[in-house]
This record gives sequence, structure tokens and C-alpha cells, in this order.
Amino acid sequence: MSRRSMVRPGGRSARVQESVHAAVRDLEAEAGRDALSVPQIAARAGVTPSTIYRRWGDLRELLSDVAVARLRPEAPPEDRGALAADLEAWAEQFLDEMSSPPGRAYIRDALLGDPDGTNAGQCSAYAAEQIEVILARAAERGEQAPDVETVLDRTVAPMMYRILFRPDELGPAYARQLVATLVEGDR
Amino acid sequence: MSRRSMVRPGGRSARVQESVHAAVRDLEAEAGRDALSVPQIAARAGVTPSTIYRRWGDLRELLSDVAVARLRPEAPPEDRGALAADLEAWAEQFLDEMSSPPGRAYIRDALLGDPDGTNAGQCSAYAAEQIEVILARAAERGEQAPDVETVLDRTVAPMMYRILFRPDELGPAYARQLVATLVEGDR
Repeated sequence: MSRRSMVRPGGRSARVQESVHAAVRDLEAEAGRDALSVPQIAARAGVTPSTIYRRWGDLRELLSDVAVARLRPEAPPEDRGALAADLEAWAEQFLDEMSSPPGRAYIRDALLGDPDGTNAGQCSAYAAEQIEVILARAAERGEQAPDVETVLDRTVAPMMYRILFRPDELGPAYARQLVATLVEGDR
Repeated sequence: MSRRSMVRPGGRSARVQESVHAAVRDLEAEAGRDALSVPQIAARAGVTPSTIYRRWGDLRELLSDVAVARLRPEAPPEDRGALAADLEAWAEQFLDEMSSPPGRAYIRDALLGDPDGTNAGQCSAYAAEQIEVILARAAERGEQAPDVETVLDRTVAPMMYRILFRPDELGPAYARQLVATLVEGDR
């Protein structure tokens, strides 16, 4: 487990995390990420560098932690009244956000400063949670739906694979096609 | 394009690359990757550090280059006489190699020291080449087969996504299931 996951909400530990995350976001916006350093972040956050090293290990792990926080979905997926439409809208938005320059940078940060895989796992958990909301709605409507692991394999995995390994020609049509072949079953 | 891709086979440039790659492999085997440094690699390879910085930029980009070379398939995929069997054998081996500790380390290195995505793209190109061999055999046999992009989306992408983002419970049964649902179409 990463240090992040030991944070107790509302406690001093959570306040330190919030101020350090805010310092990273502010300094990155002001001077760019290449200018980031632990002493500079600590000074802005009003903590000692050793607090950051103790909690996050190093700058890369801190940036990974901040990236995961930024990749957290801000709202439940849009309800368009049908499974295919809900998945399509969600997949299009996911691809649009993740394939954007900031999205790519956050995915990269999340993966790189993540010795134990906790942060990458959290990114995947966010996607799974959104998909579960969509699948629960489909169940309420009485629609037949694949399980969440299948949706991950058939939509999230190809999008993330191409973002990381084959970044050419990624657009909404690709996201729609993945959903169509999953829901309608034509290949 | 990465500097690597400008190497002319057989030329001095290619000899320098081979000696530097060999130095990285030897030193990593002897002392572990955390002990690697550009001056140390340069000394072992018999080149100047500036040669390495000029060609590769930094240690991370060099390690990415070495990782891609190690991820290159050594042989064409096994011919088992049928598309499903060929894809299954290839997918099982791919998952076994890529999810191993060294495989994960090479994937990580390939992604991390790769500012322009050239090395990650090469990893994907290796997989696509192997799949194309399998699909060409299927065509010779008169078997119906999906196209290479579909095979990447349905087998390589989910395996790589889970290796990077959801590393639990990855085994040959998972690789076989991906191939079965692709080839037989049951979901």
C-alpha cells in the first residue's frame, strides 16, 4: 500500500496531504513541472522537506499521488437512458480526457512513481466504479449487460493501451466502435 | 523519432549502440539496476559519457532503449495448425513474459524514458508483427480471421492494461479466455 492510503481523512495527515497537493498544483501551473522540487513544494505547503520524504518517499511518488487525485472522476457518468448510450458517452469522455496532453502526463506520473502499483490500481478502480454505475442503471432498466471486467477489457483497456503504446488516430469514433462491438457483438 | 531509430546497421553508430547496450546488460546483472550510472556504463562500453548523452539524452532514455531491445521477440510465433491454437499459444507466452518481474521492469523502462512515444510504439509494433504472422498463416489455411488491430484490442491491450493497472490474478487461463471470446465470439 502507498503512504497515501494510510491517510486518515480530516486528520493532520489529511491536511498535510491537501496542502502539499495544492502546492504541487500551484507551482506546476506557475513554473511548469520541470521546475518542481521537494524543498520548493515543502516551502509552499508550509511543511518540512522531511515531511514530504517521509510521507511520499520522493518527488516521483508525490507526483504520482497528485496525478491519481487529478484522475479521479468528478461526477457519475451521464445517464442517457440506455446501456449503449451511457457506455458510449462515458467512453468518449474517458478517451478525450486521458488522451489529452494533461491526461497523458497524469497517467504517466501515476504509473511511474508507483513502486507497488497502488496508484495505477486506483486509476483502474476509478474507471471500474464509473462502469459499475452504468451497469447498475442497465440492470434497473432490465437491460442485459456484460460484467465490469468485460467492459474494462473491451473498452478501457484498448483505449489505455493505444494511449500508451499506439497513440495514432485516437478519436471518439474509436471509443464508439469499441462500445458498439461490445454491446452489439459484431466484430 | 528517438535517436535509436537513426542508427545505421553495421556502421560505427551501430557498434557504439551494441557496446553500450551490452554494458548496461552486464552492469545490471553484476550490480543491479539501481547502481547504473552513465559514466560507469560509458567506461564499460569504452565510450565517453558525452557519447551516451548525445545519443540517448539521459540514463532513463538509454534504459528505455535497452528495454525495447530486450522486448523484441526472438522467434516467430509457434505454428500449431489453427488460428485459435496459434493465438492462444502466443497470448499465453506474451502474458507469461510480460507479467514476469523482468518483463514488467522492461515495460516500465520502455514507457518511462520515452518522451516521444517511439519506444512504446516499437513494443506495440513487435506484438503486431507476431500477430500478423499468425493471421497470414490463418489466411493461407483459408481460416476466417479478425484483423491485426482487432487482435491487439482484444488480446494484447487487456493483457497490458492488467499488467500495468490491475495486476491481480493474471494467468494463462486469462489469456486463453481472451482468445476464445475473440475467435469464438461468445462473451
